[in-house]
Amino acid sequence: MEKTTTTQQTMDQVISPAQLLEHWQGHRGLTRRVIEAFPEKEFFNHSIGGMRPFSEMVSELLAIAVPGLREIVGGKTTELEEKIDFGNDKSKVLQLWDESTEEINQLWSQLGLEHFQEYIKLFGQYEGTVQSSIFYFIDNEIHHRGQAYVYLRSLNIEPPFFYER
Amino acid sequence: MEKTTTTQQTMDQVISPAQLLEHWQGHRGLTRRVIEAFPEKEFFNHSIGGMRPFSEMVSELLAIAVPGLREIVGGKTTELEEKIDFGNDKSKVLQLWDESTEEINQLWSQLGLEHFQEYIKLFGQYEGTVQSSIFYFIDNEIHHRGQAYVYLRSLNIEPPFFYER
Repeated sequence: MEKTTTTQQTMDQVISPAQLLEHWQGHRGLTRRVIEAFPEKEFFNHSIGGMRPFSEMVSELLAIAVPGLREIVGGKTTELEEKIDFGNDKSKVLQLWDESTEEINQLWSQLGLEHFQEYIKLFGQYEGTVQSSIFYFIDNEIHHRGQAYVYLRSLNIEPPFFYER
Repeated sequence: MEKTTTTQQTMDQVISPAQLLEHWQGHRGLTRRVIEAFPEKEFFNHSIGGMRPFSEMVSELLAIAVPGLREIVGGKTTELEEKIDFGNDKSKVLQLWDESTEEINQLWSQLGLEHFQEYIKLFGQYEGTVQSSIFYFIDNEIHHRGQAYVYLRSLNIEPPFFYER
């Protein structure tokens, strides 16, 4: 089989690995701006209808992204640890967010095209392909960030534009 | 160039066209259940923080999905018409939703793998590739449906499970 160039690989793809990384990091950049938009107190406390404050959703997102991708790339199963102690400090959250951004880029460079259709049981319990797992990470982030938009609006704060990545 | 089988095409893809359709329709099925979960009055009226009621968001989703995909497949530019008159009748909404489901399946069968990386200016104004446009349709639906989850919780109604498609 001939080795194809990167351009050819992209042209034969619905979405190429590089495009999917850019897509994910674009969403993560938007989520970062939503975190920034919250006053610190409300980030950790504000809630509607008994739902979690956005800080706890962000803790879940951080607990899934890098540990999930590490498992996909390294193959070693770990347990899902959804609760991260931010010490009620939003700058700590943003720091962890930025560290994750870098680590996702590094891990992604180890993820070859041939792996996206492999089956995996993430965190020892979530079965699917590598691609369906990664799309779940992204979709789950969009879902909770959409909820954060309502939190912000209910606090009379204008959220960042959804379409700006 | 050899003609590849469907299986080979899937194995060489981050996500194949068939998988992306299933992914999208899986999300659309969940959104349908969220529409169903709303009492009719609150579907058309309930709002938080000055945001639109969920009915208007659903109108936007319907206005984007089939018309957008029609434009992608047929190449003919139309204007975005976000306001659909549902006559405050939720069964009308569900009927339009189901008709869109069928039409998306039909249009998708005309969308070859070679088109996903083509550039397009949707509704005469949104520039991007076919893939980035389709992912925008899906992401925008997840985003607004996430907001509907907060609406439902604020009404003391349990939304469907996010991970059930």
